[in-house]
Amino acid sequence: MDSFSNESCNIPDVAAKAVLQPSSLPKDCEAYVEGIHYDHDISIEELLAIYKNFGFQATHLGQAAEMIDRMLKYRLIDDPVSEDDIGSKYEDPEVRKSTKCTIWLAFTSNMISCGLRDAFVYLAKHKLIDVVVTSGGGVEEDLIKCMGKTYIGRFNMDGATMRESGLNRIGNLFIPNDNYCDFETWLQPRLDEMHRQQTEDGVSWTPSTFIDFLGKEINDETSFCYWCHKNQIPVFCPGITDGSIGDNLYFHTYSKSSPTTLKIDVVRDIRRVNDIAVHSKKSGIIILGGGLAKHHVCNANLMRNGADFAVYISTAQEFDGSDSGANPDEAVSWGKIKAYTNPVKVHADASLVFPLLVAGVFRKYENTRL
Amino acid sequence: MDSFSNESCNIPDVAAKAVLQPSSLPKDCEAYVEGIHYDHDISIEELLAIYKNFGFQATHLGQAAEMIDRMLKYRLIDDPVSEDDIGSKYEDPEVRKSTKCTIWLAFTSNMISCGLRDAFVYLAKHKLIDVVVTSGGGVEEDLIKCMGKTYIGRFNMDGATMRESGLNRIGNLFIPNDNYCDFETWLQPRLDEMHRQQTEDGVSWTPSTFIDFLGKEINDETSFCYWCHKNQIPVFCPGITDGSIGDNLYFHTYSKSSPTTLKIDVVRDIRRVNDIAVHSKKSGIIILGGGLAKHHVCNANLMRNGADFAVYISTAQEFDGSDSGANPDEAVSWGKIKAYTNPVKVHADASLVFPLLVAGVFRKYENTRL
Amino acid sequence: MDSFSNESCNIPDVAAKAVLQPSSLPKDCEAYVEGIHYDHDISIEELLAIYKNFGFQATHLGQAAEMIDRMLKYRLIDDPVSEDDIGSKYEDPEVRKSTKCTIWLAFTSNMISCGLRDAFVYLAKHKLIDVVVTSGGGVEEDLIKCMGKTYIGRFNMDGATMRESGLNRIGNLFIPNDNYCDFETWLQPRLDEMHRQQTEDGVSWTPSTFIDFLGKEINDETSFCYWCHKNQIPVFCPGITDGSIGDNLYFHTYSKSSPTTLKIDVVRDIRRVNDIAVHSKKSGIIILGGGLAKHHVCNANLMRNGADFAVYISTAQEFDGSDSGANPDEAVSWGKIKAYTNPVKVHADASLVFPLLVAGVFRKYENTRL
Amino acid sequence: MDSFSNESCNIPDVAAKAVLQPSSLPKDCEAYVEGIHYDHDISIEELLAIYKNFGFQATHLGQAAEMIDRMLKYRLIDDPVSEDDIGSKYEDPEVRKSTKCTIWLAFTSNMISCGLRDAFVYLAKHKLIDVVVTSGGGVEEDLIKCMGKTYIGRFNMDGATMRESGLNRIGNLFIPNDNYCDFETWLQPRLDEMHRQQTEDGVSWTPSTFIDFLGKEINDETSFCYWCHKNQIPVFCPGITDGSIGDNLYFHTYSKSSPTTLKIDVVRDIRRVNDIAVHSKKSGIIILGGGLAKHHVCNANLMRNGADFAVYISTAQEFDGSDSGANPDEAVSWGKIKAYTNPVKVHADASLVFPLLVAGVFRKYENTRL
Repeated sequence: MDSFSNESCNIPDVAAKAVLQPSSLPKDCEAYVEGIHYDHDISIEELLAIYKNFGFQATHLGQAAEMIDRMLKYRLIDDPVSEDDIGSKYEDPEVRKSTKCTIWLAFTSNMISCGLRDAFVYLAKHKLIDVVVTSGGGVEEDLIKCMGKTYIGRFNMDGATMRESGLNRIGNLFIPNDNYCDFETWLQPRLDEMHRQQTEDGVSWTPSTFIDFLGKEINDETSFCYWCHKNQIPVFCPGITDGSIGDNLYFHTYSKSSPTTLKIDVVRDIRRVNDIAVHSKKSGIIILGGGLAKHHVCNANLMRNGADFAVYISTAQEFDGSDSGANPDEAVSWGKIKAYTNPVKVHADASLVFPLLVAGVFRKYENTRL
Repeated sequence: MDSFSNESCNIPDVAAKAVLQPSSLPKDCEAYVEGIHYDHDISIEELLAIYKNFGFQATHLGQAAEMIDRMLKYRLIDDPVSEDDIGSKYEDPEVRKSTKCTIWLAFTSNMISCGLRDAFVYLAKHKLIDVVVTSGGGVEEDLIKCMGKTYIGRFNMDGATMRESGLNRIGNLFIPNDNYCDFETWLQPRLDEMHRQQTEDGVSWTPSTFIDFLGKEINDETSFCYWCHKNQIPVFCPGITDGSIGDNLYFHTYSKSSPTTLKIDVVRDIRRVNDIAVHSKKSGIIILGGGLAKHHVCNANLMRNGADFAVYISTAQEFDGSDSGANPDEAVSWGKIKAYTNPVKVHADASLVFPLLVAGVFRKYENTRL
Repeated sequence: MDSFSNESCNIPDVAAKAVLQPSSLPKDCEAYVEGIHYDHDISIEELLAIYKNFGFQATHLGQAAEMIDRMLKYRLIDDPVSEDDIGSKYEDPEVRKSTKCTIWLAFTSNMISCGLRDAFVYLAKHKLIDVVVTSGGGVEEDLIKCMGKTYIGRFNMDGATMRESGLNRIGNLFIPNDNYCDFETWLQPRLDEMHRQQTEDGVSWTPSTFIDFLGKEINDETSFCYWCHKNQIPVFCPGITDGSIGDNLYFHTYSKSSPTTLKIDVVRDIRRVNDIAVHSKKSGIIILGGGLAKHHVCNANLMRNGADFAVYISTAQEFDGSDSGANPDEAVSWGKIKAYTNPVKVHADASLVFPLLVAGVFRKYENTRL
Repeated sequence: MDSFSNESCNIPDVAAKAVLQPSSLPKDCEAYVEGIHYDHDISIEELLAIYKNFGFQATHLGQAAEMIDRMLKYRLIDDPVSEDDIGSKYEDPEVRKSTKCTIWLAFTSNMISCGLRDAFVYLAKHKLIDVVVTSGGGVEEDLIKCMGKTYIGRFNMDGATMRESGLNRIGNLFIPNDNYCDFETWLQPRLDEMHRQQTEDGVSWTPSTFIDFLGKEINDETSFCYWCHKNQIPVFCPGITDGSIGDNLYFHTYSKSSPTTLKIDVVRDIRRVNDIAVHSKKSGIIILGGGLAKHHVCNANLMRNGADFAVYISTAQEFDGSDSGANPDEAVSWGKIKAYTNPVKVHADASLVFPLLVAGVFRKYENTRL
C-alpha cells in the first residue's frame, strides 16, 4: 500500500460508480419478502404459507410444506401415460387415479426419543407414509418408551454423576437404565421365539422382518413399530445390531445352549428396499437428520433413477464432505434425486419444525380425506 | 490387543453389569417427554406450551416462550422492597405496580431483510420492547425497504452474474442496487440538514440520535425506525458507519464545501445505553443473532450486575470461543446475566422461530392488555 | 422501564462494583495462553505441543495429541495388577509389559474419499490400530480408489449437469461413474465365489468376514482393506449393504439361477465386536465423524464399562440431541467412556487436523519403535 | 405405492441403467485426490501444498495458502498499465515494482484472547499487513494481556461459581477480573490526557487515532497495538465503545468535572478507511471470523469495486442469511470482492489453521525478503 490520501475534494469516481451501480431485475422475479401482520390469530397452516416468502430458513420450511403437500396429493393420473405404462395396468385411468406417490420417511434415533415419536405414530397410523428407514436406536427407543418414561434434563448434566445413578443422557433428555433392563426382560424370550422359528420353521430373519415381529409383539398403540406392523409399512434398519437390540442379540448368543445362534441377514432387505423403489411409480423422500437412514433412502431411490420429491431437515453442514451434511444437489449428481425437482433442505433441528409440517400439512391433508 | 476370544459360553460378567446397571431417579424429576396428539387444530400458543416437554431445541423454544412471558408480565410489586428502594419512589406500591421490566431487543441486519421486520414493527408499535441494539445494516435495510422491495432468490445464485445486473444477495434474498441509489438520494439532503444543525444549532450527534432523526424523517408506518422514534424507543448502533449509511457519510465528507464535516460521537451513546441499564429496576434481554448487537446488550447489563431474564436465538456455536457463539452461562461468568436465572439459548435461525414467539407470547400478552 | 436519567454526576455504584469486582484464581490454575514465536521452523510435533495452551479448538487438538500418545505408549504394566488379573496370565510382568491398549478407529465414508485414506493405510500397515468401524461407503470407496481416481471439484458444481456427465459429487470431490462400473465388474465374480463358499463349504458370511475377503482379493498396497486383511485388523460395518456394495448385492440377488441368495449375517459380528471390547485390558477410541461408526465403537465399549481413552473429531453439534453431535460426556453417562478420563472432542473437519495427528503423534511413536 | 414385488427374476432395467450410467470427464479436469506418505518428516509448508489436493476443508486451506502467497508476492508490475495509471506515477516501472498489494486483516476479539495474538504481532512487526479492522475487544484484550495472564479452562466451567471468584470466561479460557481493574487504572489517566488534548489542542479523536494513541502508550513489544502504532498500520474499530474500553469511557463521562466529555467521532474513520481502499492499486483481504470486522473490510473494498484476493476463515454458516456466515460469492454480488478471483472460505476455527498459514506462508515469504 502506497499512501493514504486524505486530500481529494471529490468523491472518488470508482467509489461512486461501484456503490451506485444501476440494477436490472430478472423478468421472472415475482416473489418478494413479506412478513406477518400480527393482527389476528395465525394458524400453523397460514404461517407455513407466509413463510414461503419470508426469507432464509423460513422460506425453506415454506417450500418443504408445499413439497410435502404435493407428495401427498399426487396421483399417477396427474402425469401423462409413459412408455413403460403402455400395456400394463397403469394404462387404466382408474388405476392411475388411485396410484399414489410412495412416501419414504428417514429419521435418526434421537427423534424417537423426543416428542417427534407421536408425529411418526400419527403418520404411520394414518398411512401417510409408505416406507421407513431408521437406525437401531430408532426401533429400540420406540419400544422402550412402552416400558418407561424419557425425562427432560439439561445438556450440561454431569456424565459421571449420571452414570453413578444409572441415568443415560440423550441431549437434554435422560432415560433411567431400568428401562433398558425392562427391555431386556421383554426382548430375550422374543429372541428365543425367533430362534425357534429359525430352527424349526426355517424362517430367515432380516432387520425388516425382525422389526415387524417386534411391532406385532409390543402390541401397544403408542408405538410407532406397532402401527408400522399393523399397516404393513416396512421399517428398514441395516444397523439393527447397533444399540440396545444389539446388546440383547449379543447376550442371546451366549444364552443359547443350541449350537446355532440367531441369524439376521441383511441381503434380503437390500433386495426388498430397492425393489420398493423400482416399483414405485412416483417417489417422495422426507429425511430427518443424517447418517445411514438418510443415505439408505437416497441410495434406494437411485435404483429408480431418482426421487421425484425431496425434503431434508438437518442441522449438518456440507463443508466437511459428509453425506449427512450434503445438500440435495449432491444427491442429484448421483441420480438419487431427479434433476429439476427443486429439492428442499431445511437447516433446523427437526424437533422445532417437523411438528409444524405434521400439523399444517399432513393433518390438513388427512382431514380432507375424511 | 491380545486375542479375540469367541470361546466363552457365558455372558461376560463385565458386559452384563455394565449394560444392566440399575438406576435411581433424582427426586425432583417430574418432567418427561410428551408429544402432540394431532387430533385437533393446534394453536401456536398451545404448541409452545407442549414444546417445553418435547426435547432438544423444542424444549429450549418452550422455555424461551415462558421466559418472555415472565418478562412481559413482571411488575416491581412482584419483588420485595429492596434496600435501594427505601426512601425512593419505589417504596410506593402504586409505583411498584406500574414499574415494568426493561426489555432489550438485539438483532442483526439480516433479520430486518427477512420477514422478521414486521415482527419488530409489531413490538415497537405496541411498546413491547424498551431498548434496541442493532448493526448499521439493521437501520439501513429498514429504511431502504420503504423505497423498494427485497426479493426471494436462492443461496446458490451466481455472484458474478448478479453483480453485472446490480443485484445484491443476502442469503436467499436479493435487493436491486437501485434501492440503494434511491436511499442515497433520500439520505444526502438529510445529512445536509444534520450538518446544518451541527454547525448552526450546536447539535452533537450520536448514532442513537441520528437513527431517531431518520425514523422521524422516514415517516412511514411500515418502518421499524419510525415506530421507535414515535414511541421513544432508543436504537443503539455503535457500528452505524458500517454499511450503506457509512457509504453515504463517506460521500458526504466529499460533498461539503464547508471546512467541517458531520461528526457522530459514540461516547455519549455508551453513557446513554449504560445509564438505561443502571436505572432499570428489572432487565430482560432478547438477543437474535450475534456480533456487536449481542455483546452490546450484554455489556450494558453488566453495568447493573446482570440481566434478570435472558433469551438468545442463534445459530452460532461456542466451540470457537467467539462471543457470537457463547452460551448464556459465559455471560453469567462476566456478570452480564444474573446467576440462577436459567437463561435460554435456542439454537435456530430466528426466521423460523421468532414469529412463533411473537404470535404465541407477545401478541397474547398484548391482547390481554386491551 | 421508568426513565433514562442522564443527570447523575457520580459513577453509578452498581456499575463500578459490577465492573471492578475483585478476583481470586483457583489454586490449581497453572496453564495460561501462550502463542507461537515464528522465529524458527516449527515442526508439526512442536505445533501440537504449543496448541495445548493456545485456546479454543487448538487446545482440544493439543489434548487429543497427548491422549493418542498415551494410548500408543500404554502397557498393562503401567497399571497395578487388578483383582481380575489374579490367577490369569496377566499377573505375569512380561505379559503385562507386552499387553497394549486396544485402539479403535471409526470413520465415515467421506474420509476415505479424501486424502485421509493414506493416513488410515499408514495406521493399518504399521499396526497402530486394532479394530475399525466404518460405513458401507468407507469400504467401497477404498476399493474403488484402486480402480480409478477421485477428482478435485467444487462444492457448488451443478448436480443436474454432473448427472448428465455421470460424475458423482462428494463435497468438493467427484468420482466418474465409470469407476463404479469397474467396481461392479470386479465385485460380481467375487460375490459368485462367496455364494459358492456359502453353498458348498457352509461358510456363513458376516460384514467383517466379507470385508476381510475383499481386502484379500483386492491385493493392492494402496488399499486400507488390504492392510487390514494382511494385519488381521477386523473391520466392522453393520451398514455394509448401504452403498455401492449394496447395489451389487442387490443385482446379485437377481443374477443367481440358484434358488438361494448370498446371506450376510449381522449377529455374529455383534458377538465378535463386543467380545473384542470385553477382552481388551485397556481400550482407546478414536472417532472421526458421526453416524453409525461413532455409535458402534462407543456401544462396544459399553460392554467393558467404558473406554479408557477417547478422542472425537467432528463437525457435528450437540444441540439437536443426535448421537453424531453428542459430546464425550454424554457417552460417559451411558458407561461408554469411563468417567474421569478427560475425553476430548476436536470440533473440526478431520481432513484439516487428522494428518497433523498422524504426522506428529503416530509417526513419531512408530519411529521410536524402529 | 402399489405393491412390493419380489418375484422378478431379472435385474430391473431402470436400476441397472441408473447405477451403471457411463461417465465423461470434463477436459480441464486434472487435479485428483492425493494423500500424504508419512515416510518422512513433513514440514508445514509441504503439508499446505499437499492439502490443495486433499479434499474438503484441507483443499480450502491449501487454496488459502496459495492465495495469501499471491497477495504477498504481488507487485503492480505484474499487471499491465491501466488507463487510470497513465499520466500518474504508476506508469513508472520502478514505482510499479515497489507497489504492493494492500493487505487487510480482520479478526474478532476472541482471536486476540487465544494464542493467535502472537501471530498477529508477527504480521504487524514484519509489516506483512497494511490495514486492520477488529472489534472493541480485539483492542482491549491485546492491551490487557500486557497486564495479566489469560488462563486455560474448560467450556463447561460453571458461570455462577466463576462470577463469585471474579473469573471471566471466553470459551475455554478465563481472565481474572483483576486484569480489567488494572486496565482501568492504566486507562483512566490516558483518557484524561485525551480529553486534555481535545479541549486544549482541538484534537478530534476517532477510533483509529484513539487506538494508535493506546498503542503508543502501552509501549510493550508483546502488544499488537504497539506494533501497529510503530509501523503505522491503522487499526479501525467502529465498535470501540463495546467492551471494557467502553466501560472506561462510560466511567470517564462521570469522572470529569469539566462540562464537556471526551468525544470519539466515527465519520472521519469511515472517510479514512474507504480512502485507503480507493487508493490501493491492488487489495487482498484476510478475514478471520465474522461480525462487524468482516463486513467492514468487505464494505471498504466495495469502494474500489472489489478486493482482488480474498480469504475467509470462519465457523459461521450461510443458511441463516447472516453476513457472518455468508460465503465469498455473496460479497461478489455486492461488488465487495471482484468476480472471477476464486475467493476462498476455510470452514474452521482460526485457532486451528491460521498458525499453519503464518508458519507456512507469511514466514516463508518474510524469510525470502531477508
